[in-house]
Amino acid sequence: MGGDRGPRCIVSAARRSLSLYPSLHITLVGAADCVEPLLTPADLASGRIVLRPAREQILADDPPASVLRGKRDASMRVALQLVRDAEVDGCLSAGNTGALMVLARSVLGTLDGVRRPAIMAALPVSGKLCHVLDLGANVDCPAEQLFEFALMGSAAAAQLSGNSAPRVALLNIGSETHKGNRQVRDAAALLASCAQLNYIGHIEGDGLFRGEADVVVCDGFVGNVLLKASEGLAGYLQAELRAAVAGSRLLRWLAPLVLHATRAVRERHDPARYNGASLLGLRGVVMKSHGAADEAAMVAAIGHTMRACEVRLPERIAGCVQEYRAAL
Amino acid sequence: MGGDRGPRCIVSAARRSLSLYPSLHITLVGAADCVEPLLTPADLASGRIVLRPAREQILADDPPASVLRGKRDASMRVALQLVRDAEVDGCLSAGNTGALMVLARSVLGTLDGVRRPAIMAALPVSGKLCHVLDLGANVDCPAEQLFEFALMGSAAAAQLSGNSAPRVALLNIGSETHKGNRQVRDAAALLASCAQLNYIGHIEGDGLFRGEADVVVCDGFVGNVLLKASEGLAGYLQAELRAAVAGSRLLRWLAPLVLHATRAVRERHDPARYNGASLLGLRGVVMKSHGAADEAAMVAAIGHTMRACEVRLPERIAGCVQEYRAAL
Repeated sequence: MGGDRGPRCIVSAARRSLSLYPSLHITLVGAADCVEPLLTPADLASGRIVLRPAREQILADDPPASVLRGKRDASMRVALQLVRDAEVDGCLSAGNTGALMVLARSVLGTLDGVRRPAIMAALPVSGKLCHVLDLGANVDCPAEQLFEFALMGSAAAAQLSGNSAPRVALLNIGSETHKGNRQVRDAAALLASCAQLNYIGHIEGDGLFRGEADVVVCDGFVGNVLLKASEGLAGYLQAELRAAVAGSRLLRWLAPLVLHATRAVRERHDPARYNGASLLGLRGVVMKSHGAADEAAMVAAIGHTMRACEVRLPERIAGCVQEYRAAL
Repeated sequence: MGGDRGPRCIVSAARRSLSLYPSLHITLVGAADCVEPLLTPADLASGRIVLRPAREQILADDPPASVLRGKRDASMRVALQLVRDAEVDGCLSAGNTGALMVLARSVLGTLDGVRRPAIMAALPVSGKLCHVLDLGANVDCPAEQLFEFALMGSAAAAQLSGNSAPRVALLNIGSETHKGNRQVRDAAALLASCAQLNYIGHIEGDGLFRGEADVVVCDGFVGNVLLKASEGLAGYLQAELRAAVAGSRLLRWLAPLVLHATRAVRERHDPARYNGASLLGLRGVVMKSHGAADEAAMVAAIGHTMRACEVRLPERIAGCVQEYRAAL
């Protein structure tokens, strides 16, 4: 059990989720001496929350390559083994993303026909969700890999959002076909010739936030910069507005009214609601929570993990990839 | 004379700039039949605003490669020739960015020791400016090119902001040295060994908006996505807030008070104030305005062009690059 806020936050979120979802069972994987004292007799009596002890932990600065060799009893590895052994339906981690990806590939393996898994998250834009991948698992992506991301992202978005033909776009620096680097231009050609996808062409960073696509494909370097910059800018603008409120006697006085009137907007963009990025292309459901997630954000991520298990996301993606290969 | 709003907006901005800056002289380059009717007898009598006719125009969708061969009398080319022939000190265009870059390289040439020019803009973060380059001129950048961007960006930021040792950072998807693609890792090694720069290491998208660096270096694909996504997100959040205000009787009533109290914040982030991206590495001052710039934004871009001319930006960058080559 990782995450910046430690096991106490995770146990509270687990308890809250059990009360929200009657069919849910949770296995906590972590150091027994840390987690056990946090569980109440009622938790244990319910039979819906159990502890699977693991003596080691992957740290935030453990290089992904080294976690493959060492720490055989790391909680992250044990949790993934529970998925592999079908003891649980899915795994959620708030730990080191790079380590989670390499361990998941090693323990679970990738789906047939998938070269590299990708990380996908949903951003709230214009009253709906925009699914963006890859967000950092793959820094240099040839065209075929970008194309695979599109297949996986489209299949996942269809399952998770109930939209059977999500609009798929390729992130680029201009809408014209001659724009972009070679990988993007070549991927565009592959996408344009794929009848299975609702491919709508190139999209730019501003188009993404105008809700012009349901799935946006990019390499992990670009996607990660986009995600972090968006988080940074939204946080910065919020801080500026807070400072303006604090600096004005009038606004300080009006703040409760303004907060009340803007509640719907703020809730629609509450980062906690969108916590939970899917690792797609693996033989099992693996979800990544933001390391800094609080209880509400962790509850949201647990809900997203449940949903991915319910729709059997890996099987759906495998089916979509096979359908494409069969049509070649 | 390009730009989405046509010559009328540019002529108004020119007139307003002449009244703001007593030392300014402006040569308008464009179609005589469009521009002449917009000039008043007072404009012409002042001698500070003149028209240099050009019969052709580069269009927004002209591929950059084709503008090199055709349209010998395009206003963009003529304006750059005026810089080359020292008839003016600098050129500002609101036209096709790709065309401006290839024409500027062809007409003016690059500075000694500079492989490729880059586009740099200043973003307002945490009460100061963060200079980001490249923003789209170069989509695939080897490490040496990223290093050159750092040299040019640092020299330019020092001149434009008066900070003699601007903090230079490399945009990456993690702060650890093993993160990122090969180009970024190799560029980091070059930067770390350069005594001439105040290099502070990797920066992520969120760190940029926390004001952790004065100059942020990235390839043009990543920079363009970052810039457009930031514009898109800021616009989207603004629209959401406007909708919240419109949807609440209370907020509609309070709007004038809230607008008054938040004026300083809004002015600090007014996109118009930051209009004007520098094309660095050329033998002359070339500035790019946003195509959609209104009069205020165009006035700001004219001011930035003047400032780049006053500090002799190309000579300063050339000096900085030569100093580095001499120390090798």
